[in-house]
Amino acid sequence: MANIIDGRKLAKKINNETAEQVTELKSKNICPCLAVILVGDDQASHRYVRSKHRKAEQLGIKSIVKEMPENTTQASLMKVLDEYNHDDSIHAILIQSPLPKQIDEKFIMKQINPEKDVDGFQTINAGNLFLNEPTNYPVACTPNGIIQMFKEYNIELEGKNAVVIGRSTIVGRPMAALLINAGAEVTVLNHFADISEYTKNADIVVSATGKLHTLTAEDVKPGATIIDVGQNVDENGKLVGDVDFDEISKVANYITPVPGGVGPMTICMLMKQTVQLAKWSDKQNG
Amino acid sequence: MANIIDGRKLAKKINNETAEQVTELKSKNICPCLAVILVGDDQASHRYVRSKHRKAEQLGIKSIVKEMPENTTQASLMKVLDEYNHDDSIHAILIQSPLPKQIDEKFIMKQINPEKDVDGFQTINAGNLFLNEPTNYPVACTPNGIIQMFKEYNIELEGKNAVVIGRSTIVGRPMAALLINAGAEVTVLNHFADISEYTKNADIVVSATGKLHTLTAEDVKPGATIIDVGQNVDENGKLVGDVDFDEISKVANYITPVPGGVGPMTICMLMKQTVQLAKWSDKQNG
Repeated sequence: MANIIDGRKLAKKINNETAEQVTELKSKNICPCLAVILVGDDQASHRYVRSKHRKAEQLGIKSIVKEMPENTTQASLMKVLDEYNHDDSIHAILIQSPLPKQIDEKFIMKQINPEKDVDGFQTINAGNLFLNEPTNYPVACTPNGIIQMFKEYNIELEGKNAVVIGRSTIVGRPMAALLINAGAEVTVLNHFADISEYTKNADIVVSATGKLHTLTAEDVKPGATIIDVGQNVDENGKLVGDVDFDEISKVANYITPVPGGVGPMTICMLMKQTVQLAKWSDKQNG
Repeated sequence: MANIIDGRKLAKKINNETAEQVTELKSKNICPCLAVILVGDDQASHRYVRSKHRKAEQLGIKSIVKEMPENTTQASLMKVLDEYNHDDSIHAILIQSPLPKQIDEKFIMKQINPEKDVDGFQTINAGNLFLNEPTNYPVACTPNGIIQMFKEYNIELEGKNAVVIGRSTIVGRPMAALLINAGAEVTVLNHFADISEYTKNADIVVSATGKLHTLTAEDVKPGATIIDVGQNVDENGKLVGDVDFDEISKVANYITPVPGGVGPMTICMLMKQTVQLAKWSDKQNG
């Protein structure tokens, strides 16, 4: 039976390290601060933002939540963002997606100061990752969290056959770049028809398709590591991942469960990265 | 026998199109201009720069070659670059590598105005490519030239198994991004030990290892397209590519020769991109 990669346990461990770093920074009179801008009434968004806020406060990170009404204009959102972009006491900025229709979301997201880009979505930060530049830059939280899992469980990447299913800018592409930079032989799959042809030789598979039954046991090489980014609801209304967990557990060496796998890593990496941005800004100003 | 992809012929065709676009731009009083900065006495560099200069003039592109002595300081190079960065009549800037030791090459290269980055090496441009942003940006000339080859010979990319051997920032990484953006299933190889395991299933292979005998006929899937970026010198002093051309020609469907394959595309794409940068700057200013 496969070893279960415990995302909740690892998130707790990293959160403890983050809290220690916050204490250390505060002793130098730096209080890491995350500002979240939340526009409109989307209930799921309000829930996510509340849980980020709670986690930040738990770890000693200052959390600003700016709520703006559903009918906010792009200009007034831009005004708030501009203020946060220039406020030295704010180290990390997140604009909760989705935004109301009157706002050009793609445009607004690109206006976040890249030095406060806690999501790692800004072009310049993605470019640094893609080019593997030897400099400090934030990285998309979910793939970055997956890299922490490999480290925690001593899963080697160098020279390994790694397959990333999905080429989104939030998961697939940054995941592929992180794996390339770590020395793996990396395949990025875009179409999901002949997945098996690629995955059956893979030492590591990261699935981010959002589709049930993306992988079954026959698609998996015995001894492989299977990372499931999916958050899907099955026919019984149960939260499940992309892959057939029970069957694959019999052949894989490592596997992430859903829930309790990749999910808890994302907020944890958001907090860790807020603290990193505070550190980097301190070095720059010092 | 494989079809030979004729880089010289395609470069000529694209150069003719570029010359036409130059004429059109000149009729609107825009004269596309490429500025090359050449520091020091490296003879190969002088040769490359001369051939770029000649090609630009042939196509009607204004070519500025700024020669600076071997003992140029970083500050004086930066002063010239800064002037070019701000000069609206210059659309494309290239600093010929390598630079003398007293200059931090990596730093200087990053100071080129991204809007004049004819090589497509700036982080923001690489980030746009990596994220497949729907905007105008220059792309590294060699992989961009290879994409033109696929187009010219109607070689389909969508859903195809494509393997890129090499993960350099100049060829491998941008090539992989272009192929991902074109809808291929893309593998980037970093180690060159188990190449065959990947290439023997590949519809398209791009080799950029700089190593003789990177691929032999047994490594190649019958009917594949083989693109050879290598420029190596064999035991007889002859210019050859990475792959065993004669043997692979018997199994592949398309193959690029060396010389006369990818090589001629690089300067041709440099010229094409100079004109594109001039067009984009016109749109922006207009």
